Amino acid sequence: MSEALQDHYPDDFSHCYGCGRLNKVGLHVKTCWDGDETVSRFTPHPEHMAVPGYVYGGLIASLLDCHAMATASAATLRQAGKDIGEAPSPRFVTGSLKVDYLKPTPLGPELVIRARAVEVGERKVKIEATLSAGEIVTAKSEALAVRMPDTMRNA
Amino acid sequence: MSEALQDHYPDDFSHCYGCGRLNKVGLHVKTCWDGDETVSRFTPHPEHMAVPGYVYGGLIASLLDCHAMATASAATLRQAGKDIGEAPSPRFVTGSLKVDYLKPTPLGPELVIRARAVEVGERKVKIEATLSAGEIVTAKSEALAVRMPDTMRNA
Repeated sequence: MSEALQDHYPDDFSHCYGCGRLNKVGLHVKTCWDGDETVSRFTPHPEHMAVPGYVYGGLIASLLDCHAMATASAATLRQAGKDIGEAPSPRFVTGSLKVDYLKPTPLGPELVIRARAVEVGERKVKIEATLSAGEIVTAKSEALAVRMPDTMRNA
Repeated sequence: MSEALQDHYPDDFSHCYGCGRLNKVGLHVKTCWDGDETVSRFTPHPEHMAVPGYVYGGLIASLLDCHAMATASAATLRQAGKDIGEAPSPRFVTGSLKVDYLKPTPLGPELVIRARAVEVGERKVKIEATLSAGEIVTAKSEALAVRMPDTMRNA
Protein backbone atom coordinates (compact mmCIF):
# COMPACT_ATOMS: atom_id res chain seq x y z
CA MET A 1 0.00 0.00 0.00
CA SER A 2 1.32 3.46 -0.93
CA GLU A 3 1.42 6.62 1.15
CA ALA A 4 -1.83 8.61 1.32
CA LEU A 5 -2.37 11.04 -1.55
CA GLN A 6 -3.99 13.62 0.74
CA ASP A 7 -0.85 13.83 2.90
CA HIS A 8 0.90 15.43 -0.07
CA TYR A 9 -1.62 18.07 -1.11
CA PRO A 10 -0.16 21.58 -0.72
CA ASP A 11 -1.09 23.15 2.65
CA ASP A 12 -3.56 25.59 1.10
CA PHE A 13 -5.42 22.60 -0.44
CA SER A 14 -5.55 20.63 2.82
CA HIS A 15 -8.57 22.17 4.56
CA CYS A 16 -11.32 20.10 2.87
CA TYR A 17 -13.98 18.83 5.26
CA GLY A 18 -13.91 15.47 3.49
CA CYS A 19 -10.19 14.83 3.18
CA GLY A 20 -8.07 17.75 4.37
CA ARG A 21 -5.38 16.83 6.89
CA LEU A 22 -5.62 20.39 8.32
CA ASN A 23 -9.44 20.33 8.82
CA LYS A 24 -9.78 19.65 12.54
CA VAL A 25 -13.32 18.26 12.46
CA GLY A 26 -13.49 16.70 9.00
CA LEU A 27 -13.65 13.12 7.76
CA HIS A 28 -9.96 12.75 6.84
CA VAL A 29 -10.42 10.41 3.87
CA LYS A 30 -7.03 8.88 2.99
CA THR A 31 -6.51 7.46 -0.52
CA CYS A 32 -3.73 4.98 -1.31
CA TRP A 33 -2.76 2.88 -4.30
CA ASP A 34 -3.54 -0.84 -4.12
CA GLY A 35 -2.24 -2.15 -7.43
CA ASP A 36 -4.21 -0.55 -10.27
CA GLU A 37 -6.93 0.65 -7.95
CA THR A 38 -7.04 3.23 -5.22
CA VAL A 39 -8.55 2.40 -1.86
CA SER A 40 -9.72 4.30 1.22
CA ARG A 41 -11.40 3.09 4.39
CA PHE A 42 -13.80 4.90 6.68
CA THR A 43 -15.85 3.86 9.69
CA PRO A 44 -18.95 6.08 9.95
CA HIS A 45 -19.74 7.74 13.25
CA PRO A 46 -22.96 6.79 15.06
CA GLU A 47 -24.57 10.10 14.06
CA HIS A 48 -23.99 9.42 10.33
CA MET A 49 -27.28 7.58 10.05
CA ALA A 50 -30.14 7.76 7.56
CA VAL A 51 -32.51 5.61 9.62
CA PRO A 52 -31.38 3.56 12.62
CA GLY A 53 -28.95 0.91 11.39
CA TYR A 54 -28.10 2.45 8.02
CA VAL A 55 -25.63 5.04 6.72
CA TYR A 56 -26.83 8.43 5.49
CA GLY A 57 -26.48 8.94 1.74
CA GLY A 58 -24.75 12.30 2.01
CA LEU A 59 -21.82 10.69 3.81
CA ILE A 60 -21.56 8.06 1.08
CA ALA A 61 -21.52 10.80 -1.58
CA SER A 62 -18.89 12.70 0.41
CA LEU A 63 -16.57 9.68 0.69
CA LEU A 64 -16.94 8.81 -3.00
CA ASP A 65 -16.35 12.44 -3.99
CA CYS A 66 -13.12 13.01 -2.06
CA HIS A 67 -11.78 9.57 -2.95
CA ALA A 68 -12.51 10.18 -6.65
CA MET A 69 -10.72 13.55 -6.68
CA ALA A 70 -7.71 11.96 -4.99
CA THR A 71 -7.77 9.14 -7.53
CA ALA A 72 -7.63 11.72 -10.33
CA SER A 73 -4.61 13.26 -8.65
CA ALA A 74 -2.87 9.92 -8.10
CA ALA A 75 -3.52 8.81 -11.69
CA THR A 76 -2.13 12.09 -13.02
CA LEU A 77 1.04 11.58 -10.98
CA ARG A 78 1.36 7.97 -12.14
CA GLN A 79 0.91 8.99 -15.77
CA ALA A 80 3.89 11.32 -15.26
CA GLY A 81 5.89 8.37 -13.90
CA LYS A 82 5.67 9.53 -10.28
CA ASP A 83 4.52 7.79 -7.15
CA ILE A 84 2.54 9.51 -4.39
CA GLY A 85 4.89 11.75 -2.41
CA GLU A 86 7.45 12.23 -5.19
CA ALA A 87 5.79 15.55 -6.11
CA PRO A 88 2.98 17.64 -4.57
CA SER A 89 -0.38 15.97 -5.30
CA PRO A 90 -2.14 17.76 -8.22
CA ARG A 91 -5.36 19.59 -7.28
CA PHE A 92 -8.71 18.58 -8.78
CA VAL A 93 -12.26 19.76 -8.08
CA THR A 94 -15.50 17.94 -8.79
CA GLY A 95 -17.20 18.68 -12.11
CA SER A 96 -19.93 16.09 -11.60
CA LEU A 97 -20.73 13.16 -9.34
CA LYS A 98 -23.34 10.44 -9.96
CA VAL A 99 -24.01 8.02 -7.13
CA ASP A 100 -26.15 4.90 -7.49
CA TYR A 101 -27.32 3.62 -4.12
CA LEU A 102 -27.60 -0.11 -4.83
CA LYS A 103 -28.51 -1.37 -1.38
CA PRO A 104 -28.89 0.12 2.10
CA THR A 105 -25.41 0.52 3.68
CA PRO A 106 -25.27 -0.92 7.21
CA LEU A 107 -24.04 1.47 9.92
CA GLY A 108 -21.27 -0.08 11.98
CA PRO A 109 -18.70 -1.85 9.78
CA GLU A 110 -15.77 -0.12 8.15
CA LEU A 111 -16.60 0.99 4.60
CA VAL A 112 -14.11 0.37 1.79
CA ILE A 113 -14.03 2.65 -1.24
CA ARG A 114 -12.19 1.48 -4.37
CA ALA A 115 -11.71 3.49 -7.56
CA ARG A 116 -10.11 3.51 -10.99
CA ALA A 117 -9.33 6.43 -13.28
CA VAL A 118 -10.88 5.27 -16.56
CA GLU A 119 -9.93 8.35 -18.62
CA VAL A 120 -6.93 10.53 -17.76
CA GLY A 121 -6.73 13.78 -19.72
CA GLU A 122 -4.61 16.89 -19.22
CA ARG A 123 -7.44 18.83 -17.59
CA LYS A 124 -10.16 16.23 -16.89
CA VAL A 125 -10.16 12.75 -15.37
CA LYS A 126 -13.09 10.32 -15.22
CA ILE A 127 -13.27 8.05 -12.18
CA GLU A 128 -15.41 5.02 -11.39
CA ALA A 129 -15.72 3.85 -7.79
CA THR A 130 -17.51 1.42 -5.51
CA LEU A 131 -18.30 1.54 -1.81
CA SER A 132 -18.56 -1.73 0.10
CA ALA A 133 -19.59 -2.87 3.57
CA GLY A 134 -17.98 -6.24 4.17
CA GLU A 135 -18.19 -8.14 0.88
CA ILE A 136 -21.28 -6.26 -0.32
CA VAL A 137 -21.03 -3.37 -2.79
CA THR A 138 -23.75 -0.98 -1.62
CA ALA A 139 -23.04 2.06 -3.84
CA LYS A 140 -21.15 2.93 -7.00
CA SER A 141 -20.23 6.23 -8.58
CA GLU A 142 -18.98 8.01 -11.67
CA ALA A 143 -17.19 11.29 -11.23
CA LEU A 144 -15.62 13.89 -13.46
CA ALA A 145 -12.59 15.60 -11.93
CA VAL A 146 -11.41 18.95 -13.29
CA ARG A 147 -8.02 20.56 -12.63
CA MET A 148 -8.61 23.31 -10.10
CA PRO A 149 -8.97 26.68 -11.81
CA ASP A 150 -6.51 29.39 -10.76
CA THR A 151 -9.49 31.55 -9.74
CA MET A 152 -10.05 29.27 -6.73
CA ARG A 153 -6.55 29.71 -5.35
CA ASN A 154 -5.90 31.84 -2.28
CA ALA A 155 -9.54 32.91 -2.05
CA MET B 1 -44.52 29.19 2.93
CA SER B 2 -45.75 25.83 4.24
CA GLU B 3 -44.69 23.93 7.35
CA ALA B 4 -41.48 21.90 7.04
CA LEU B 5 -41.92 18.42 5.58
CA GLN B 6 -39.27 16.96 7.90
CA ASP B 7 -41.21 18.05 10.99
CA HIS B 8 -43.87 15.48 10.03
CA TYR B 9 -41.72 12.41 9.34
CA PRO B 10 -42.53 9.59 11.78
CA ASP B 11 -40.18 9.60 14.80
CA ASP B 12 -38.31 6.47 13.61
CA PHE B 13 -37.55 8.29 10.32
CA SER B 14 -36.29 11.47 12.02
CA HIS B 15 -32.69 10.55 12.84
CA CYS B 16 -31.10 11.38 9.46
CA TYR B 17 -27.82 13.32 9.73
CA GLY B 18 -28.96 15.54 6.88
CA CYS B 19 -32.51 16.34 7.87
CA GLY B 20 -33.67 14.48 10.96
CA ARG B 21 -35.18 16.67 13.69
CA LEU B 22 -34.01 14.09 16.27
CA ASN B 23 -30.35 13.99 15.10
CA LYS B 24 -28.59 16.18 17.64
CA VAL B 25 -25.55 17.04 15.53
CA GLY B 26 -26.96 16.90 11.99
CA LEU B 27 -27.67 19.55 9.37
CA HIS B 28 -31.45 19.82 9.97
CA VAL B 29 -32.46 20.56 6.37
CA LYS B 30 -36.05 21.89 6.36
CA THR B 31 -38.08 21.65 3.16
CA CYS B 32 -41.17 23.80 2.57
CA TRP B 33 -43.49 24.44 -0.37
CA ASP B 34 -43.07 27.77 -2.16
CA GLY B 35 -45.75 27.64 -4.87
CA ASP B 36 -44.95 24.75 -7.24
CA GLU B 37 -41.40 24.44 -5.95
CA THR B 38 -39.94 23.32 -2.68
CA VAL B 39 -37.28 25.38 -0.97
CA SER B 40 -34.79 24.93 1.85
CA ARG B 41 -32.09 27.23 3.17
CA PHE B 42 -28.80 26.39 4.84
CA THR B 43 -25.83 28.43 5.95
CA PRO B 44 -22.68 26.26 5.86
CA HIS B 45 -20.45 26.14 8.92
CA PRO B 46 -16.88 27.47 8.65
CA GLU B 47 -15.50 23.90 8.62
CA HIS B 48 -17.61 22.93 5.57
CA MET B 49 -14.91 24.15 3.22
CA ALA B 50 -13.34 22.60 0.14
CA VAL B 51 -10.55 25.18 -0.12
CA PRO B 52 -10.54 28.44 1.84
CA GLY B 53 -13.52 30.52 0.69
CA TYR B 54 -15.50 27.75 -1.00
CA VAL B 55 -18.02 25.10 0.10
CA TYR B 56 -17.09 21.41 0.13
CA GLY B 57 -18.90 19.35 -2.52
CA GLY B 58 -20.00 16.64 -0.11
CA LEU B 59 -22.10 19.15 1.81
CA ILE B 60 -23.71 20.33 -1.42
CA ALA B 61 -24.56 16.72 -2.34
CA SER B 62 -25.96 16.15 1.16
CA LEU B 63 -28.24 19.21 1.01
CA LEU B 64 -29.49 18.33 -2.48
CA ASP B 65 -30.08 14.70 -1.44
CA CYS B 66 -32.17 15.37 1.66
CA HIS B 67 -34.08 18.18 -0.01
CA ALA B 68 -34.87 15.94 -3.01
CA MET B 69 -36.18 13.09 -0.82
CA ALA B 70 -38.38 15.55 1.07
CA THR B 71 -39.63 16.95 -2.23
CA ALA B 72 -40.64 13.43 -3.31
CA SER B 73 -42.54 13.09 -0.05
CA ALA B 74 -44.23 16.49 -0.35
CA ALA B 75 -45.21 15.84 -3.98
CA THR B 76 -46.68 12.46 -3.05
CA LEU B 77 -48.78 14.13 -0.37
CA ARG B 78 -49.91 16.88 -2.73
CA GLN B 79 -50.89 14.33 -5.39
CA ALA B 80 -53.15 12.76 -2.75
CA GLY B 81 -54.71 16.19 -2.12
CA LYS B 82 -52.92 16.74 1.19
CA ASP B 83 -50.77 19.56 2.48
CA ILE B 84 -47.67 19.03 4.64
CA GLY B 85 -48.79 18.13 8.16
CA GLU B 86 -52.21 16.72 7.19
CA ALA B 87 -50.72 13.21 7.23
CA PRO B 88 -47.34 11.73 8.24
CA SER B 89 -44.76 12.57 5.55
CA PRO B 90 -44.16 9.52 3.29
CA ARG B 91 -40.66 7.98 3.53
CA PHE B 92 -38.33 7.88 0.53
CA VAL B 93 -34.72 6.78 0.16
CA THR B 94 -32.25 7.77 -2.54
CA GLY B 95 -31.96 5.48 -5.55
CA SER B 96 -29.54 7.74 -7.39
CA LEU B 97 -28.19 11.27 -7.20
CA LYS B 98 -26.35 13.16 -9.93
CA VAL B 99 -24.82 16.52 -9.02
CA ASP B 100 -23.33 18.93 -11.55
CA TYR B 101 -21.02 21.45 -9.90
CA LEU B 102 -21.44 24.42 -12.22
CA LYS B 103 -19.33 27.00 -10.38
CA PRO B 104 -17.45 27.15 -7.09
CA THR B 105 -19.92 27.84 -4.24
CA PRO B 106 -18.75 30.68 -1.98
CA LEU B 107 -18.52 29.85 1.75
CA GLY B 108 -20.35 32.42 3.85
CA PRO B 109 -23.74 33.29 2.36
CA GLU B 110 -26.92 31.32 3.01
CA LEU B 111 -27.49 28.69 0.30
CA VAL B 112 -30.95 28.25 -1.21
CA ILE B 113 -32.03 24.88 -2.60
CA ARG B 114 -35.08 24.74 -4.87
CA ALA B 115 -36.62 21.59 -6.34
CA ARG B 116 -39.46 20.22 -8.43
CA ALA B 117 -40.81 16.70 -8.66
CA VAL B 118 -40.85 16.13 -12.43
CA GLU B 119 -42.24 12.57 -12.35
CA VAL B 120 -44.38 11.31 -9.49
CA GLY B 121 -45.05 7.56 -9.55
CA GLU B 122 -46.47 5.22 -6.92
CA ARG B 123 -43.04 3.92 -5.93
CA LYS B 124 -40.54 6.28 -7.61
CA VAL B 125 -40.27 10.05 -7.92
CA LYS B 126 -37.79 11.99 -10.05
CA ILE B 127 -36.63 15.34 -8.68
CA GLU B 128 -34.67 18.20 -10.24
CA ALA B 129 -33.04 20.77 -8.00
CA THR B 130 -30.74 23.76 -7.97
CA LEU B 131 -28.50 25.20 -5.28
CA SER B 132 -27.80 28.94 -5.28
CA ALA B 133 -25.57 31.37 -3.43
CA GLY B 134 -27.11 34.83 -3.78
CA GLU B 135 -28.44 35.06 -7.33
CA ILE B 136 -25.96 32.52 -8.72
CA VAL B 137 -26.91 28.88 -9.34
CA THR B 138 -23.72 27.00 -8.46
CA ALA B 139 -24.95 23.38 -8.63
CA LYS B 140 -27.87 21.40 -10.00
CA SER B 141 -29.02 17.85 -9.43
CA GLU B 142 -31.24 15.04 -10.61
CA ALA B 143 -32.35 12.47 -8.08
CA LEU B 144 -34.44 9.32 -8.10
CA ALA B 145 -36.38 8.77 -4.88
CA VAL B 146 -37.69 5.31 -4.03
CA ARG B 147 -40.33 4.49 -1.40
CA MET B 148 -38.49 3.09 1.59
CA PRO B 149 -38.52 -0.72 1.56
CA ASP B 150 -40.05 -2.42 4.60
CA THR B 151 -36.72 -4.19 5.16
CA MET B 152 -35.22 -0.86 6.31
CA ARG B 153 -37.82 -0.32 9.03
CA ASN B 154 -36.99 -0.82 12.69
CA ALA B 155 -33.50 -2.07 11.93
